[in-house]
Amino acid sequence: MGRPQIYLFGDSITEISFDVGGWGASLANHFSRTADVVLRGYSGYNTRWALKVLDRIFPVSRGGDGGTETAPIALTIFFGANDASLPNRCSAFQHVPLDEYKENIRSTVSFFKKRWLTTKVILITPPPIDEDARVRYPFGNNPEGLPERTNEAAGEYAKACIAVATECHIPFIDLWTKMQQTPDWKKDYLSDGLHLTKEGNQLVFEEVIKKLRDEGLSLESIPIDLPHVSDIDPNDPLKAFL
Amino acid sequence: MGRPQIYLFGDSITEISFDVGGWGASLANHFSRTADVVLRGYSGYNTRWALKVLDRIFPVSRGGDGGTETAPIALTIFFGANDASLPNRCSAFQHVPLDEYKENIRSTVSFFKKRWLTTKVILITPPPIDEDARVRYPFGNNPEGLPERTNEAAGEYAKACIAVATECHIPFIDLWTKMQQTPDWKKDYLSDGLHLTKEGNQLVFEEVIKKLRDEGLSLESIPIDLPHVSDIDPNDPLKAFL
Repeated sequence: MGRPQIYLFGDSITEISFDVGGWGASLANHFSRTADVVLRGYSGYNTRWALKVLDRIFPVSRGGDGGTETAPIALTIFFGANDASLPNRCSAFQHVPLDEYKENIRSTVSFFKKRWLTTKVILITPPPIDEDARVRYPFGNNPEGLPERTNEAAGEYAKACIAVATECHIPFIDLWTKMQQTPDWKKDYLSDGLHLTKEGNQLVFEEVIKKLRDEGLSLESIPIDLPHVSDIDPNDPLKAFL
Repeated sequence: MGRPQIYLFGDSITEISFDVGGWGASLANHFSRTADVVLRGYSGYNTRWALKVLDRIFPVSRGGDGGTETAPIALTIFFGANDASLPNRCSAFQHVPLDEYKENIRSTVSFFKKRWLTTKVILITPPPIDEDARVRYPFGNNPEGLPERTNEAAGEYAKACIAVATECHIPFIDLWTKMQQTPDWKKDYLSDGLHLTKEGNQLVFEEVIKKLRDEGLSLESIPIDLPHVSDIDPNDPLKAFL
């Protein structure tokens, strides 16, 4: 048996989560002796594309006995920021209609729930959008100078995400609402109106840790991989490894 | 087939490598769409203890066909900082005599080379030691007020590590020498006379990337997991996923 695994599945906010101060790296650091944090982030992807490649991203693997697959202990699904791109602006090719987004999230959750009965699946809503910053930091050509995402649209997708989580009885992180509870959320949490600052990453990290703990997954509940150095008897160190 | 894996195996300098700006997190970020960086760091451990638990840390796993195990593409072995603790000072319980250290590193390399024929195994020497800082930042009780590690001793273990790498014809990173080529190495690279600053982490990251590239492993040679968003046709996105 190897270490338990925690998968992070999502778009760019997941893909770049191992950058300096990123929420993925913080999780890996937090669980450095207890669980492997596995990165499955795909910049620019929406739920339509993700759904097309789910079984390629998560190929069936077999455990040490050559038989049953070991389910990860947890998995975050963090999509919607690209789906919520406006259909008539410069990122239209990433847009997915709200109803389809909802159906796609439902299918994605169902894929994991069917495959891995014990895995704690956590949905994360898209973050809020700072529209002015989106105009200042365009990802490509934006000749019209209009934001390709709005906070209102992101909010609709966040609500849809929560609706699916509630319907499926799985935990969720309402990042859209949570971030906006801080007055300076645009500056504090967003670096370009969409992606996360160090503080934004810290907030996501803390929320994920909290949800995992609610689901019974914490440093106290997951066994440490081999004795901690403070539990090794200085007078007879090898005893700890019998 | 899942993504290729890169294992980081070592002591605390490996275990804390996913902290903010850490070399492990930087590797995971660098390879975010190409390889999984798997953390196997054990704070305080020396090669004697590591050797005792090698087969528990690296249990045999089977591939998707229930048959052969998939070898990681690379693995770093980064031990020696604890082995080099002086036998008559406050960290004596971690000390491993130089000859045994050499033999242990040899056995560890041999374990991986026998198990995984294709894996690029990279040895990393212990870093240099700032003895004054070691007195200022003791890890536990140090009533004598003498450094429990010296730079000279660390250098002996570094030399032994390189000797084994040369003998086994595997790549190595001579961190002990490399760091000391910078005049202010004590302040620039070490936070407590032993562990790494952000700059020290950056140096290790860059050296590992360089060695991996020398061994044919880079972003150019490892295929990206699913199309990059810039390779997706905005007029027909789903074509990229057929």
